[in-house]
Amino acid sequence: MDKFKRNERLAVMTQVLTAAPNRIFTLSHFCEMFGAAKSTVSEDAAILAETMRQFKLGTVETVTGAAGGMRYRPMTQEGEGRQFMEGVCEMMRAPSRVLPGGYLYFSDILSDPALVAGMGRLFASAFYDAGVDFVLTMETKGIPVALMTAQALHVPLTIARHSSKVYEGSAVNISYVSGKGVIETMSLSRRAVREGSTALIVDDFMRGGGTARGMLSMLSEFNVKCVGTCFVMAVDNPMNPILPDCRPLMLLKEVKDGQPIQVRVADWVK
Amino acid sequence: MDKFKRNERLAVMTQVLTAAPNRIFTLSHFCEMFGAAKSTVSEDAAILAETMRQFKLGTVETVTGAAGGMRYRPMTQEGEGRQFMEGVCEMMRAPSRVLPGGYLYFSDILSDPALVAGMGRLFASAFYDAGVDFVLTMETKGIPVALMTAQALHVPLTIARHSSKVYEGSAVNISYVSGKGVIETMSLSRRAVREGSTALIVDDFMRGGGTARGMLSMLSEFNVKCVGTCFVMAVDNPMNPILPDCRPLMLLKEVKDGQPIQVRVADWVK
Repeated sequence: MDKFKRNERLAVMTQVLTAAPNRIFTLSHFCEMFGAAKSTVSEDAAILAETMRQFKLGTVETVTGAAGGMRYRPMTQEGEGRQFMEGVCEMMRAPSRVLPGGYLYFSDILSDPALVAGMGRLFASAFYDAGVDFVLTMETKGIPVALMTAQALHVPLTIARHSSKVYEGSAVNISYVSGKGVIETMSLSRRAVREGSTALIVDDFMRGGGTARGMLSMLSEFNVKCVGTCFVMAVDNPMNPILPDCRPLMLLKEVKDGQPIQVRVADWVK
Repeated sequence: MDKFKRNERLAVMTQVLTAAPNRIFTLSHFCEMFGAAKSTVSEDAAILAETMRQFKLGTVETVTGAAGGMRYRPMTQEGEGRQFMEGVCEMMRAPSRVLPGGYLYFSDILSDPALVAGMGRLFASAFYDAGVDFVLTMETKGIPVALMTAQALHVPLTIARHSSKVYEGSAVNISYVSGKGVIETMSLSRRAVREGSTALIVDDFMRGGGTARGMLSMLSEFNVKCVGTCFVMAVDNPMNPILPDCRPLMLLKEVKDGQPIQVRVADWVK
């Protein structure tokens, strides 16, 4: 006789697994939690996996091997990511977003928890099997979406700063040429990065790729490999710089006063 | 005959409710999702509420009235928040965190998704019924924990900057005296804040309260009420400035070279 009913166990497993995406929980973890046999928990897991699949709420997978167990990945199914991003594009098209100088206001989108969580899941789903050790972003506007990407991948976030700060300890500083052609500096705490690890770059906007190249050159100082570069929005330009596995969610044509904002979802978003 | 089994419905309800904390979902939302009767979904909700309570995974509540429905609040139960923060304090006590000048390195903690999510839940649980419209933070280090607090409260995040940026549109700038006694500037986009709304301030560290007072004076420019001020860490000082409903998670004694780091969990954390 099991202590808890199947529906109770399933509710609890769902909460535990989805609250820590991509983290592997052993079967024993749940056996102890419920005072239930492994066979029972295995069956629970199979039902949960099928239910999540059916309702398009993500993937519950069984990982085999010594470090095996169960994990939840909030993967978006075919069409779902695109639909979500079409909604964000629609928000981007509001004429009131145009600022002097052809800039677009979208700080509200970049700090809306539900929107950045959705965008972070999209980035993460493209890099689940890339062995990412940490997410790197450059302050300030990309931090929320970078954090949500890191959460979905179950890895830490590291934030590069514009200048070294006393409370970051010793840091590596580099100079780079920004999108506007200006020389800027970037600083990364030495403690924040492990030599020889693997990074994913996440940032809010890419125009000429200057900041991204700065981050790449920073990573090479730490002997860190970069598996991909993710941007919430990039300028829609066939001459875009070549960056490792570049994933912009939205592509923006040059903004001209009085003309509609032309923004579309990038082709890789399904 | 229901289309889905109770255990399937419960798993899905758990995923939907916990992925959007504090957001109210109508019963009809789930009735349509499952093709089930209201009475069935009501029973599901009651089982779910009891299960979450039993496993200390948060609260599922029924909200009555026109805008009624169900919502999930990741409230921490008596003892749980304190245990979590004791763990963070233990991390803080590593002697390697001491930097020259009595500073402590804790950027790693401030950008760890699991830790900031836990801390954000603690802040949110103290202000669920305060009518918070948005969370305000000052760039840079407090952004992750502020975002997670906003997510737990189901409200947007607004980020004040050190200087006005072209892509933030017209902004209100103020000057304030920082903890170090230096005059600094703070800038907040006019579009980011609705006049007459209610804010919760979340930041990483409070020494003299200068930045917090700056944020309060910024909010008064927008005729915004502030219901509370949350800090990951504050200096443990009986002479601390008086701030609205001040909630530091950790209290730190002055750091002296060669002496153990004295940090403790604040009394309000249960």
